[in-house]
Amino acid sequence: MTDSPAANPNPAKSLTIGVFDSGFGGLTVLRALLPLIPHAHYLFLGDTARLPYGSKSRETVARYAVSSAKFLHDQGADLLVIACNTATALALPDIQQALPIPVIGVVEPGAQAALATSSSPGSNTPDGPNNVLVLATQATVQSHAYTHALNALGLEASEKACPLLVPLVEEGWTNHPVTDEVLKIYLTEALAAAPATQTLLLGCTHYPLIEPAIHRTLDSIGHPLTVIDSADATARATAALVANHFPNLTPTTQPSCTFYATDSIEKFQRLGSNFLGQPVTKVNLVDLGG
Amino acid sequence: MTDSPAANPNPAKSLTIGVFDSGFGGLTVLRALLPLIPHAHYLFLGDTARLPYGSKSRETVARYAVSSAKFLHDQGADLLVIACNTATALALPDIQQALPIPVIGVVEPGAQAALATSSSPGSNTPDGPNNVLVLATQATVQSHAYTHALNALGLEASEKACPLLVPLVEEGWTNHPVTDEVLKIYLTEALAAAPATQTLLLGCTHYPLIEPAIHRTLDSIGHPLTVIDSADATARATAALVANHFPNLTPTTQPSCTFYATDSIEKFQRLGSNFLGQPVTKVNLVDLGG
Repeated sequence: MTDSPAANPNPAKSLTIGVFDSGFGGLTVLRALLPLIPHAHYLFLGDTARLPYGSKSRETVARYAVSSAKFLHDQGADLLVIACNTATALALPDIQQALPIPVIGVVEPGAQAALATSSSPGSNTPDGPNNVLVLATQATVQSHAYTHALNALGLEASEKACPLLVPLVEEGWTNHPVTDEVLKIYLTEALAAAPATQTLLLGCTHYPLIEPAIHRTLDSIGHPLTVIDSADATARATAALVANHFPNLTPTTQPSCTFYATDSIEKFQRLGSNFLGQPVTKVNLVDLGG
Repeated sequence: MTDSPAANPNPAKSLTIGVFDSGFGGLTVLRALLPLIPHAHYLFLGDTARLPYGSKSRETVARYAVSSAKFLHDQGADLLVIACNTATALALPDIQQALPIPVIGVVEPGAQAALATSSSPGSNTPDGPNNVLVLATQATVQSHAYTHALNALGLEASEKACPLLVPLVEEGWTNHPVTDEVLKIYLTEALAAAPATQTLLLGCTHYPLIEPAIHRTLDSIGHPLTVIDSADATARATAALVANHFPNLTPTTQPSCTFYATDSIEKFQRLGSNFLGQPVTKVNLVDLGG
C-alpha cells in the first residue's frame, strides 16, 4: 500500500472508494476491502472530533454523517462505504439521498452474512427458530435497523446495547478480566431474553477487536455461538457493486490510501493501526465545522 | 426553582450566570451554586452533540468551548462558569479572551480546596510531603493544568487518566462491582506511583456520582484518603466573584434556570436529573454547528 495526495491521481479510469466511520472501527472494513478490491484508491475519513455517534440522536448522527459523506464525495469518491453501524442504521437513506454516487452500508451485508450462517443444517433449535443476537451501540439498537433487516430475510432477531464495549476497546483492554466481566453481564442478560440464539452478529466495527474475549465469555457461560461481523460481508457486497457499476477499470498493482481525520492526527495514527492491521501514515486533518 | 424564557427577564438589576459543560456533569456545579447564589437567573448549556471533550485534542476542545461560551454570552450571561474540567484545563484562557465578561473555571477552585485540606495538621507523611492525586480525563491529564495549579500553591501533585469512569457513570453503574474493579485498577496504579498521597481530587464533574464507590475501593486497598471535588469550591469562588463584580443585586425569592442542550432533549432531562438532584425540565435544543 502506498500513500498518495488527496486528489484522485488517475481520474480517467481508476476507481476511488470513499470509506467513512465516526472513528477508527471502520478501518476493519477498509482492511477487508484492500485484498478484495486491490485496483482502487481509497479515501478513509474518521470523524473523530464528533465521535462517538452511538450515544447520540438520529438527527445529530444524520447531520454529521451527511457532512462527512459530502466531504468524501468532494474529494473524488466514486462510491461510498459507510463503515459505521450507527451511521448506517440511522442515516443511510439520508446519505443516499444527499449524494449522486452509490452508497453502501454495513447493516444489510451483516444481515446477509447472518442468513448464510443460519441456513446451515440444524439451524433451528428445540426452543424455536434460530435467533440472531445483535450487539451494538445504544443508537443502533434504538433504530432497530438490524431487526428490520434480519426479519426481512426471515430471521428472528434480538438486540443488546453495549455502551461500555467501545470505551473498553479504546482503553486497550481487549484482553482483560474487566472486559470479560462486562461481556458476561451483557451476554447473560441478552441470552436470557433470547435463549434460542445460535448466531451472534457484531453490530459495531469496534467489536471484532474483542472477538477472542467474546468467544471465551460465551464458552464460560455455556452458550457457544457462531460469531460474525459485517466487515468481510460489506467488503464482498462492495466488490459486487463495483463489478456492476464499474466494469472497465484499469488494474493497478496495489491499492493506495489517503486518510482524513477531524481530530488529533497523532491519535488516529496510533489507534488506527490496531484496526487496520498495518501502520496508518500521512493522516490529513480536516475541519467539517462544529 | 422555576423555568423561564431564554431572554434575561430582568436585565436591569438581576444577575444571569451562564454555566457550561460538555455534557451533564456540570449540573453538579449548578447544584452547588443554587443555594449559594439564590438571587440569580441561570443559563445551563450541555454541549451533548459534541461530547465527550475528555478524549479530544486541545484545538478541538478550545473550538467547541469558545462557541459554547459565546452562545451563553449571546443569551445574556453576565458571568460564565466553565463547569467542565477538560474545557477549563485546555481552554480557559481562550474563553476568557473571547468574552468581555468574567469567566471562572473549576481547576483553580479545586486546587484551592486541596490546599485547604492539606493545610490541616499532620498533612506530611513519613514518605514525604503530602501529595494530591488528581483523577481526570485523558485530555485534562495531558494538559497538566491541575499539576501547574497545585504546584503554584506549594502542593505536590500526581495525575491519573481514567477514561472508563465517565462511560461507567453514564451506563448507570455507579454502585456496581465492575466499577469497583476498574477503580481498584486505576487507584492501585496511581497510588503505587505516588505513595505519599493523602488527598484525592476528583478532576471531572462525573466522578462525584461514584464517590461512595471511590471510598469503598480506597478502604479495600488499605489507603483511605480525603476525597474532594471542585463543585462546592467553584460555587464558593463564584459567590466571591459575584460579591466583587455585582454588589448591588436585586434579591429574588428563588433562582430560575433555563437549560440548553445540543443533542437529545429527552436524554438530557433523563440523565441530567441524576446530576442536578432534581428534575430537569424544559430543555431547549440548540444547534452550534458541526
